[in-house]
Amino acid sequence: MELIYFTVGPSKLHEKFEEFIAKGNKENIGSLSHRSPRFSELFENLSNNLKILFNVPEEYSVFYSGSATEFMERIVQNCSEKNTLHFVDGSFSRKFSEISGKQGRINTEIVAEDDGSFFLDNLPSTYEPELICLTHNETTNGVTLSPLFIESIQKRFPDKLIALDIVSSAPTSNVDFSKIDCIFFSVQKGFGLPAGLGVIFVSPRALKKAEEIEKNGKQYTGSYHSFMDLAKYASKKQTPETPNVFGMYLLNEVCLDFLNRTIEKLRSETKIKADLIYKALDGNKKLKPLVTNKELRSETVIVAKPINGSQEVIEYFKKGGFLVASGYAEQKEMQIRIANFPSHSIEQVQKLCMLIDNY
Amino acid sequence: MELIYFTVGPSKLHEKFEEFIAKGNKENIGSLSHRSPRFSELFENLSNNLKILFNVPEEYSVFYSGSATEFMERIVQNCSEKNTLHFVDGSFSRKFSEISGKQGRINTEIVAEDDGSFFLDNLPSTYEPELICLTHNETTNGVTLSPLFIESIQKRFPDKLIALDIVSSAPTSNVDFSKIDCIFFSVQKGFGLPAGLGVIFVSPRALKKAEEIEKNGKQYTGSYHSFMDLAKYASKKQTPETPNVFGMYLLNEVCLDFLNRTIEKLRSETKIKADLIYKALDGNKKLKPLVTNKELRSETVIVAKPINGSQEVIEYFKKGGFLVASGYAEQKEMQIRIANFPSHSIEQVQKLCMLIDNY
Repeated sequence: MELIYFTVGPSKLHEKFEEFIAKGNKENIGSLSHRSPRFSELFENLSNNLKILFNVPEEYSVFYSGSATEFMERIVQNCSEKNTLHFVDGSFSRKFSEISGKQGRINTEIVAEDDGSFFLDNLPSTYEPELICLTHNETTNGVTLSPLFIESIQKRFPDKLIALDIVSSAPTSNVDFSKIDCIFFSVQKGFGLPAGLGVIFVSPRALKKAEEIEKNGKQYTGSYHSFMDLAKYASKKQTPETPNVFGMYLLNEVCLDFLNRTIEKLRSETKIKADLIYKALDGNKKLKPLVTNKELRSETVIVAKPINGSQEVIEYFKKGGFLVASGYAEQKEMQIRIANFPSHSIEQVQKLCMLIDNY
Repeated sequence: MELIYFTVGPSKLHEKFEEFIAKGNKENIGSLSHRSPRFSELFENLSNNLKILFNVPEEYSVFYSGSATEFMERIVQNCSEKNTLHFVDGSFSRKFSEISGKQGRINTEIVAEDDGSFFLDNLPSTYEPELICLTHNETTNGVTLSPLFIESIQKRFPDKLIALDIVSSAPTSNVDFSKIDCIFFSVQKGFGLPAGLGVIFVSPRALKKAEEIEKNGKQYTGSYHSFMDLAKYASKKQTPETPNVFGMYLLNEVCLDFLNRTIEKLRSETKIKADLIYKALDGNKKLKPLVTNKELRSETVIVAKPINGSQEVIEYFKKGGFLVASGYAEQKEMQIRIANFPSHSIEQVQKLCMLIDNY
C-alpha cells in the first residue's frame, strides 16, 4: 500500500509535483544556465510571486540558499555585530541561538516556561539587542508563537531588527511581515517539494545594517552569501553561486498554484484540518496533544504523546496507510508529530482522524 | 528543434535523468526524511560509491552542501587560521582567494603568466602557508593544471594542506587524490544533473586541523557546516541540515552508471572527444582555441575565440542544434565555451565538429 506522508518535512509532495517536473523537463530547466535571461525571468517571477503570496512589502529583497539553516548563519552575520536575543522554546530556536554564539555574539536566551510563555522581566531595562530571533513554529514540539506575543516584542524593541523562522509555518503563517526584517523558510514542508532550497525576505533596514557592518569591515558577513553580495546579484536577477535552479522552478509552480487557490483559502483549510486533528486527539485517551494551551498550538505541526510510546501508534497509522513522524531527537520514542500542510487534503485528514478515533 | 546543451554547467543532463527521477518518485525520495534509516543507507551508498569512482582513500570523509562555492568558504574556515596561498589563473581561483581574504586570512596570490605557467620564485623561502588552494580546471578560460604542476606544489609544501577545486573536471579529472586534502565539486557539470548539490572529500589531516581550530576557539569554523559538525552527522550517516535529498539520490544513480561504464572508459572517451574538438578548432580559421599551450588545455571546458565575436557563432551552432556557452563575464562577447562531459556522446561531438569545420 502506498503510504500518505504526514511527516513534518520532508512531507507529502504537492499533488502536481510530477506534472511540474515533466513541464520543467520539457523546458530544459535542469540544463538552464543561471546566467541566462530565462533564469533571470524565473528569478524575478518567483521573487514577485513569493512576495505576493506572503504579502511581503514590495521593497523587501528575496534571496535563495541551499537550506533555511544557512539563513540562521547569514542573518547573524549580516544583522548583528555584538549581541542577539533568542526566545527558545525548542531545538530550532536553540540552534539559531547556538549559531549566533558560535560566531562570537553574546546570544542571550529567554527560555520558555513550562506553559510555553516567555518572561522578559529579568532583562535589564538598558538591554539593547541588535537582533531578535524568533521561531514562529517549533517543528520539534508543535508550539507556535501567538500574534500577540510577536506584537509585544515589536513594541518592546521598536528599533531593533527582528528575524522570524517560518520554516514549518510557511506559507499559511498569518503574520504581519511588514514589521519583520528577516523572514525565512525552506520548501520541503508547506510547499510540498523535495528539500534543498531556502528562501529569505530581507527588509530595507536589515540590508542597511548589513551594509554598515560590511563597511565597518571588522565583521565577516558571509563572503559569496553576504547580504550585500546576494543583493548585488539579486539586482541582476541572479544568485552569486549556481543555485538549485530546478527547485526554484518547482517553487514558482507551487507558488502559482497557491496564488490561484488563494492564501486565504489555504489558511482557512489549514485551520479546519488542524481543528479536526486536535479535536480527535483531545477526545482520545491513548494519544493526547502535547501542547495543552490552545493559544500555543501549531496548526501545521501537531505533536501528540501516545501513552504506549510512539512505535506502536506509528505502526498503527502505517497499517491505515499513513506515515507520521516520530518525536524529535530525545522525544523519538515518546511523541509523534503529524504535519498539516496544504498538500494534505481534508479527506485525508478526515481518514487520519478516524484512525485516531479508533486507536 | 530540441537543442543539445554543450554549455559548461548547468549542461546536458544524463541521458537517464528522467528515468532516475521516475525511479526516485516511485520510492518517494522527495518525501524521504533525512533522519530515516533509508536516508542513512543512501548517504552511505553514495559516499562509498563516490570514493570508489574518484579513487579517494577509504579514510576520507564525504560531506554535502548546496553548492561547491560554499566549500570554498568552509575549507578556508576549517583549514586555515592565518594564511592561504592561491594559484590564480581565472575567475574561480580568484573567487577562492577573495573568499579567504574576506575571512581575514592573508591570501597570497600567485597569478598565472600569460602562457599559463606559475612562477614561485618570488615566494620567500621562509613562507609557510597553512592551506594551498588550487583550481584544477578553470571554467572561465579552459585552462587546466598539469599533473606535474600539482606534484611540484606537493613537493614544495609536503606538510601543508592542499585544496583542489574539481568543479568542472570531475569525475574524469585524473589526479592522485590521496595527496590532496580537500577535493570538491558540484553536480551540474560532469554528472549531468540539475544544480543545487556540492560534494567534498576531506582527508584525515584536514579534519585534524579543523579539530585543532575548533579547540583553539578563536576562529569561526562555520557552525552547522563546520567540518566538525559535518563529521559528527556523517558518523551517523546524516547531514546537519535537511539536505538536497533528491539530488543525492540522483547523484548516486549517476555514480552507479559511471561505475558500470568504468572511470577509465569515461576518461578515455573524454580524451577522444576533447581531441576531436581541439583538432577541429586548430584547423579552423574563424574559431581558434583560446589556450595555445596544449599541456594546459582543459579536456572538459574548451574555450575558443571566434574572430567575428561570440554572438554569430553561438547562433550558427544553435541553427545546427547545439547550444554552447558564451565567454565568461567580460569575455561574453569575445569567446565561446564548449563543454565535454560524460553526457556528451561521441556522435554528438562529431556532429559539433562538422559544424566547426563548416564555419
